[in-house]
Amino acid sequence: MATDTPIRIGVMGCAEIARKVSRAIHLAPNATIAAVASRSLEKAKSFASSNGYPESTKIHGSYESILEDPEVDALYVPLPTSLHVEWAIRAAEKGKHILLEKPVAMNVAEFDKIVAACEANGVQIMDGTMWVHNPRTAKLKEFLSDSDRFGQLKTVQSCFSFAGDEDFLKNDIRVKPGLDGLGALGDAGWYAIRATLLANNFELPNTVTAFPGAVLNEAGVILSCGASLTWEDGRTATIYCSFLANLTMEITAIGTNGTLRVHDFIIPFQETQASFTTSTKAWFNELVTAWVNPPSEHTVKTELPQEACMVREFARLVGEIKNKGAKPDGFWPSISRKTQLVVDAVKESVDKNYEQISLSGR
Amino acid sequence: MATDTPIRIGVMGCAEIARKVSRAIHLAPNATIAAVASRSLEKAKSFASSNGYPESTKIHGSYESILEDPEVDALYVPLPTSLHVEWAIRAAEKGKHILLEKPVAMNVAEFDKIVAACEANGVQIMDGTMWVHNPRTAKLKEFLSDSDRFGQLKTVQSCFSFAGDEDFLKNDIRVKPGLDGLGALGDAGWYAIRATLLANNFELPNTVTAFPGAVLNEAGVILSCGASLTWEDGRTATIYCSFLANLTMEITAIGTNGTLRVHDFIIPFQETQASFTTSTKAWFNELVTAWVNPPSEHTVKTELPQEACMVREFARLVGEIKNKGAKPDGFWPSISRKTQLVVDAVKESVDKNYEQISLSGR
Repeated sequence: MATDTPIRIGVMGCAEIARKVSRAIHLAPNATIAAVASRSLEKAKSFASSNGYPESTKIHGSYESILEDPEVDALYVPLPTSLHVEWAIRAAEKGKHILLEKPVAMNVAEFDKIVAACEANGVQIMDGTMWVHNPRTAKLKEFLSDSDRFGQLKTVQSCFSFAGDEDFLKNDIRVKPGLDGLGALGDAGWYAIRATLLANNFELPNTVTAFPGAVLNEAGVILSCGASLTWEDGRTATIYCSFLANLTMEITAIGTNGTLRVHDFIIPFQETQASFTTSTKAWFNELVTAWVNPPSEHTVKTELPQEACMVREFARLVGEIKNKGAKPDGFWPSISRKTQLVVDAVKESVDKNYEQISLSGR
Repeated sequence: MATDTPIRIGVMGCAEIARKVSRAIHLAPNATIAAVASRSLEKAKSFASSNGYPESTKIHGSYESILEDPEVDALYVPLPTSLHVEWAIRAAEKGKHILLEKPVAMNVAEFDKIVAACEANGVQIMDGTMWVHNPRTAKLKEFLSDSDRFGQLKTVQSCFSFAGDEDFLKNDIRVKPGLDGLGALGDAGWYAIRATLLANNFELPNTVTAFPGAVLNEAGVILSCGASLTWEDGRTATIYCSFLANLTMEITAIGTNGTLRVHDFIIPFQETQASFTTSTKAWFNELVTAWVNPPSEHTVKTELPQEACMVREFARLVGEIKNKGAKPDGFWPSISRKTQLVVDAVKESVDKNYEQISLSGR
C-alpha cells in the first residue's frame, strides 16, 4: 500500500493566529508546511524562522507569488475577512485548496462567490473553526443525538466573550470596519452560532432577532450583541458575543430528557483533555431538597491539539481529491455558509433596530 | 438577657411545598408551628400528623378560622397564586405577618394591594424564594460586588427548566389559568428573574422583550418562554423558563473582570453544601491553546437547609416587630415587587407578539 505524501500547505499571511496553525500543520501527520507569504519578504522570513519552519520552506514576498507556487497544494488563509473574497477566489482559480479563517466572508453573498470558484475549480474549502475538530465535539454530538439520554432539543444557549484591552479596542483589525468589520459578531459570535447550529443538527433557524442593547463602536462595528433564534418546531436558542467582558465560553443545551454543559468549548482549559457535563432525567428527592440525578462530568483525552485535528481533516480531504480523484466534500462549506447566514441575520437585525429577520428561502 | 419566644407560624394550605416549609419551620431556631389550616379539617389533621407537627398544633378546617387564631403570629401562605390577593390582605388585616409563596400575585397591581394592607397593619411580608437565603447566595453577592474580581456587570443569563410529566402538564395548578395562571413564567421564570435582578443589585431593567417562540397551552398559560432585558448603562440579561425540558438551573454572570457560574442555584445538588465557580481576568496562554486563569470552584457549607434559613430570617424580622417595636423591613417586599414587575412585563411582551416593553415609571 503506497503511503501518500503529506499535503503541502502554504501559509498566506502572518497573522497571530497563523502561529498556532503553523504548529498544527507541523503536528498533523498528513500535512507539511511548504511555503509562507507576506506582503513583505522580510516579514515572511522572520515569521518562518521564529515559528520553526523547515529550511526548505519557500518564502514569498507577496500573496500573488504563493498562488503561483507549484509545490503548494493548499493554502491556509488568515487574512482579514474583507480580503477573503478576493484572495480565496484567486487561490481557487489557481487550483489551491483553501483552509479559510472565520468569519469566512463579510456576508454570505461574498461567501457564495468563493464557494462557486472552489466548485468550478474542484478545490476543497473548509473554515478554520478549530473546536469542532476536538475529539470532545464528537462526544457532544453523540450525547445530543441520543434520544434516550438527551431527547428532543428544546433550547441551546451559547456565549463567547473576552475582554479586549484598550489597545485591542482601538487598534485590532476586529474593530475596524474595513478589515474584520463584523467585529465581535464575526469573531466571537461565529463560535456561539456554530455551537447552536451544531446542537440543531445544522438545521437553519426560521427567525433571528437581535436583543436590544447591542454595543457598537464609533465606526459602527459591533463590540457586543446577542440574539434569539427560533425553529419551526418550537426549538429556540440564544447567542451572545462580546469584546467587553471577561473571557467566558458556554454551551448549555437542554433537551426533553437531558442537559449538556460545556464551559470551554472553543479553547479547552487544558490542551491535552477536555470535559463536558451531562445530565439525564434529572429530578429532585422526595422533599425537593437535593437532586437525585445530578449532572456528571466526562473527560476526553486530546491526543493531537484540536487545531492539528483540523489540519489533519483538511489534509485528508485534499488527499482524497489529489490522490484518489474524489470530489470536494460539501459538508464543511455548507456549515460555513449556514454560520455566515446567521451572522448576517444578526447584523441585519441590529441594523434594523432589532427587527425579526426571517431566514426562509436564504 | 431575655430569650424571645419563637415566632408562632400558621401554615395556611396543605400544598406539596408546605411539607418542605413545615420541616423548615421545625428546624428554624426562632420559629415554631402553631397551627395549620385547610379547607377540610380532615386534610389539615392528616397533613399535620404526616408532617410530624407537635401535638399542640391547632388544626383549622378553614382559612377564616386560622386568621382568627390569637396564638398565630404569622402565616405561611402556599395557596394558588390567584388566591393570594384575597387571603394575604385578610391576613394582614388580622395583624398576621405573611410568608407568601411565589409568584406573589397574578400581577403587580394585586401585589401593591397586598403591600398596602401589610403597611396599613404594620405586618412583615416576605416571599418564599428560598435560594436567596442559602449562605451561598451571600458569597455570590460578594463576588458580584467585588470591583476587582468581577468588575462591572455586563450580562447575566439565567434559566430554570424542568420536564413536567403528562399528569403535571394536564392537571397541575401551574398550568391552569384560574389557579397559578402565570405558568412556567410565574413559577420557573420567577427564579431566573430574581437571579438577574440580584446580579444587577436589584436595579430594574429599562426594557423587557420576550423572545419569539414562547409555548402556551390551549388555555393560554405559558409553558416555556424567554426574554432579554436591558439597563440604561448597557447591561443586558436573558432569562429562560420552561416546563418542557430537562431540569436545569443556571446563572452565568459576566463582568468586565470576572465570571460567575452556578448550576444549581435554586435547589443545590446537595442539601449540606453548595458550590459555584468564579474566574477573574481569565486569559489564554501565549499560543492560545489553553487558559492561564481557568475558573475555580468554591463550596459553601449549609448548616441549616436554605428554606430553614428563610424561615429564620422571616421569624427574625417578625420578632423585631413583635418584641422590639421595629417597623417591617421594606427590602423583601421591594424585591418581590420588582420580580413581579418583570414577570408581568415578560407576559405583556408575549401577549403583544414579542413587543419591547418599557419599565420606565412602573
